[in-house]
Amino acid sequence: MEFKQILHDIYSELAEKNDNGQVASYIPELANVDPNKFGIHYSSLEGNSYGLGDHQEKFSCQSIIKVLSLCLAIKNEGVGIWKRVGVEPSGTPFNSLVQLEYEHGIPRNPFINAGAIVICDILMSQLENPKADFLAFVQKLAFNSNINYNPKISASEKAHGYRNAALINMMKSFDNIENSIEDVLDFYYDICSIEMTCEELAQTFLLFANNGCIPNSNERIITTSQSKRINAIMQCCGFYDEAGEFSFKVGLPGKSGVGGGIVAIHPGKYSVAVWSPRLNKKGNSYKGILALEMLTTKSELSIF
Amino acid sequence: MEFKQILHDIYSELAEKNDNGQVASYIPELANVDPNKFGIHYSSLEGNSYGLGDHQEKFSCQSIIKVLSLCLAIKNEGVGIWKRVGVEPSGTPFNSLVQLEYEHGIPRNPFINAGAIVICDILMSQLENPKADFLAFVQKLAFNSNINYNPKISASEKAHGYRNAALINMMKSFDNIENSIEDVLDFYYDICSIEMTCEELAQTFLLFANNGCIPNSNERIITTSQSKRINAIMQCCGFYDEAGEFSFKVGLPGKSGVGGGIVAIHPGKYSVAVWSPRLNKKGNSYKGILALEMLTTKSELSIF
Amino acid sequence: MEFKQILHDIYSELAEKNDNGQVASYIPELANVDPNKFGIHYSSLEGNSYGLGDHQEKFSCQSIIKVLSLCLAIKNEGVGIWKRVGVEPSGTPFNSLVQLEYEHGIPRNPFINAGAIVICDILMSQLENPKADFLAFVQKLAFNSNINYNPKISASEKAHGYRNAALINMMKSFDNIENSIEDVLDFYYDICSIEMTCEELAQTFLLFANNGCIPNSNERIITTSQSKRINAIMQCCGFYDEAGEFSFKVGLPGKSGVGGGIVAIHPGKYSVAVWSPRLNKKGNSYKGILALEMLTTKSELSIF
Amino acid sequence: MEFKQILHDIYSELAEKNDNGQVASYIPELANVDPNKFGIHYSSLEGNSYGLGDHQEKFSCQSIIKVLSLCLAIKNEGVGIWKRVGVEPSGTPFNSLVQLEYEHGIPRNPFINAGAIVICDILMSQLENPKADFLAFVQKLAFNSNINYNPKISASEKAHGYRNAALINMMKSFDNIENSIEDVLDFYYDICSIEMTCEELAQTFLLFANNGCIPNSNERIITTSQSKRINAIMQCCGFYDEAGEFSFKVGLPGKSGVGGGIVAIHPGKYSVAVWSPRLNKKGNSYKGILALEMLTTKSELSIF
Repeated sequence: MEFKQILHDIYSELAEKNDNGQVASYIPELANVDPNKFGIHYSSLEGNSYGLGDHQEKFSCQSIIKVLSLCLAIKNEGVGIWKRVGVEPSGTPFNSLVQLEYEHGIPRNPFINAGAIVICDILMSQLENPKADFLAFVQKLAFNSNINYNPKISASEKAHGYRNAALINMMKSFDNIENSIEDVLDFYYDICSIEMTCEELAQTFLLFANNGCIPNSNERIITTSQSKRINAIMQCCGFYDEAGEFSFKVGLPGKSGVGGGIVAIHPGKYSVAVWSPRLNKKGNSYKGILALEMLTTKSELSIF
Repeated sequence: MEFKQILHDIYSELAEKNDNGQVASYIPELANVDPNKFGIHYSSLEGNSYGLGDHQEKFSCQSIIKVLSLCLAIKNEGVGIWKRVGVEPSGTPFNSLVQLEYEHGIPRNPFINAGAIVICDILMSQLENPKADFLAFVQKLAFNSNINYNPKISASEKAHGYRNAALINMMKSFDNIENSIEDVLDFYYDICSIEMTCEELAQTFLLFANNGCIPNSNERIITTSQSKRINAIMQCCGFYDEAGEFSFKVGLPGKSGVGGGIVAIHPGKYSVAVWSPRLNKKGNSYKGILALEMLTTKSELSIF
Repeated sequence: MEFKQILHDIYSELAEKNDNGQVASYIPELANVDPNKFGIHYSSLEGNSYGLGDHQEKFSCQSIIKVLSLCLAIKNEGVGIWKRVGVEPSGTPFNSLVQLEYEHGIPRNPFINAGAIVICDILMSQLENPKADFLAFVQKLAFNSNINYNPKISASEKAHGYRNAALINMMKSFDNIENSIEDVLDFYYDICSIEMTCEELAQTFLLFANNGCIPNSNERIITTSQSKRINAIMQCCGFYDEAGEFSFKVGLPGKSGVGGGIVAIHPGKYSVAVWSPRLNKKGNSYKGILALEMLTTKSELSIF
Repeated sequence: MEFKQILHDIYSELAEKNDNGQVASYIPELANVDPNKFGIHYSSLEGNSYGLGDHQEKFSCQSIIKVLSLCLAIKNEGVGIWKRVGVEPSGTPFNSLVQLEYEHGIPRNPFINAGAIVICDILMSQLENPKADFLAFVQKLAFNSNINYNPKISASEKAHGYRNAALINMMKSFDNIENSIEDVLDFYYDICSIEMTCEELAQTFLLFANNGCIPNSNERIITTSQSKRINAIMQCCGFYDEAGEFSFKVGLPGKSGVGGGIVAIHPGKYSVAVWSPRLNKKGNSYKGILALEMLTTKSELSIF
């Protein structure tokens, strides 16, 4: 079956389906989003690209962006970053402090909040103008200058970010934060506030299906090995304490965000982005996971 | 580069290399193995098959066999088993009781000890003659009747199995064990004592590279989807609390055992088995992981 | 106010009071007890002794007996036992395995199940005929030969004792159990099954109000310092994860059992035993704690 | 034996004794104290008062002061505070975040850092001018206007207080902090910086030996029951994860501070303060605990 047809089937089946998921409410600005939004977009290395529903509407990337901040940190610093953050699944919710205490301030992986904050700290030490430089990097990967921060979202998150403040202070107490706590948190909230459409996300993440080269420009951003390793981390750690479940049901590396977006990658083949703001209890898009499960079931293609 | 050449290079480089790993000592019988044994064997779906070193010498499969017991339980019972065991990485050592207590007797996944014991309990309820039936199943997958239990090893494990007795009693207290504790533990130690060579293991695990069909006979054992899902669990949970690291460095689904063996699978392509008894601190073969990392680096092929 | 009057007031106020507590149901035999039983008995070093309600009816001592097994172990072995069990509050439920794993098989204190099992193991190594010798010891302290085991209760507990089997196997895996697991568990269930009345318990525990001498016979059982230390452990660890609450509200060293009994001691003055089978969520007698809180509030006497 | 003689014997025996303890180094200002300082002071309700060594030299009270902040909070608000902090021993180090996460932001007791911070938050909501009002309260209890904050110590603690910042942010995320995080932490560091001598501490803590009345003025500060309960909390929670050990060895309610001070109380009788800056691994004064153990052993008097 053609992917176009599969996408169409998935969209038809899910568009009107009710789900019990809840829109993220801990950030007031996110709670304002229409919970019934639903979009999906597919982009292949062969140049195919099509989408359905709200696939061209911007939404808050949130944790999805952590793949791109990790990518930039790896590009700039290579293996040095692995002294400060691990690559193991956490087995606990995304904002847990428990493991951080037992493991002396070294976060389990770069996608739980603590790990993403360490990556922000690393970027702040690397970049001359972190906020501008990082946006430029994302725009370049996306081949699109029409991507930006949403200052309302970042302000809203910051005003309620006590848990993240706890995490970064904990890591600072173990000497795993170099820059000012306030500056690192500001930068962290900024990058999480970046808004993109499903189409833009699918396009951008083709990089990881393409062994680290931007397909449009053929510019190499990271090495083949680095690209594979980012995919491996997505596979094991991309969905908080539901990573195994996603791997089991969908069988692709991917990353979710509390804005309701999910991106998944079939290395060597395609990337796909879904958006539906209602989240399951683990904090991942309820309908998004369903859509991707249908995609790999119907196509009978997964990395496994 | 040809795989034959790659294997040769790996073997040359590693055969004489000293490593700091320690042979598993908690089971006296395992401690008697020559720590310098080293073998590697590659089998492809196209019918290629070659190995080096001690690749035709039997060793104790230990936890590697848990993939086959899971396979049989899934074949017999389908999705029903997932009410009694999860598919998430544990984030803790293989014999930890902590998570079991917090999560009310449901093990995180079928590859940590507690989960493998639950699978044994399921098999005991399914099979008329568990010990004979399971061996017949393994011999069929291996296309080889020359595979057997090692009663010395299973007796040795049983005599020191207080931690496993703690695990199964804990699960029984949460009503997650149906059969007699003693019988289930006996069966568990029996299956872990099965001995195979690298060549036999590589051959047997081709099943999971071949979407659930035995390549030699073309007999379907499990569905494509079931086969993919077993690979997904291997990817996220096959190496205890080093699963992320293996995924990151090697990029293939795989499973290790404290006997020093590791099997890895490239779905659609090949399987490979390594044996070197010295283990790293996480309980995985030190040289085995190194060999597989070299294999996917040199071949530039991984699922990512 | 006279203690006699205080006891009378407490009894009048509580006898008809309904409470939401639940009789222990995990042991079928215990669940058969009439939940409305209520008795209280007071014995002073000056020789005063009076009780009300069901104070002369036998009930299952359960964990209360752990004070006497600790007493005998200390008498026989002195400080040697503290290498194998601690004196710190556990901060977790009475049958938790979590701490045992983190702390390498050394239970936090002799009153949580794990610790009491270690004390049983110590006694088994000390005593020629553990079951007979321990009963003789209790009868001597109680100045009463009419005290015995209840084999139905011990058999009932044993048949459902998976959690305790998990605890002892865990400790055995850390080499903190010397004797056969089955024998130690049998002995543990036996001693917990001893039945006494409130009157007998109050009389027996006067030992700890009297610096280690039996008041009736003036026979010294343990030293003053040992007696004080047993009281200190009761103060900090006598009520599972409600020890602080009991200390805060009642202000006396004491020990509870799931049979619904509680004994408390005012060193140098008196001991008091209460029995009411309905338990609160922490596993302590709901009405028993209330009665003792009223006792120290009305008498304005506590150790603090 | 007279207490005067006992004190003299203890001082002689311990003054020259070397111990392996380490002066608290996490606060640079504290690390500057002469580690060989040693003082002890005894004050009885009968009016006896004597001390030896450095008993009239000021040192940093640190956590000892948390008994007085709890006292003021109870005086002002009564039982209302127990909705926001518990009375159970923590079973974990003083600055652990683990329990705080599992127990939804409610600290185990008012003497671990998290609990003391909550008490500071409560006081900030109660007091018009927290810093001045609290000092006035302490001076009144001490019957001594010559007591003050040490701004160098509080500034030094604040500059390294990442762990406490983590704790308060964690609690704020669970809505258990009302005031500004920065203000509460400032107030917390201020009160911990108060300096007193052994003589002043022994005098001040007579309040808790005297059922809540200041002995000198006979002014009632808290009720008898409140005073007894503060003693009960000291008994179970006054020494971090060494509370059981202190209870076991010393048998008196007490409180330690990382400045090397310890105060203990014999209700109805006396209070005693010791100072020796070298701490054991649990963060309590090595020589201080030894001195108090000798005191209750030689006097054969403890609450048990």
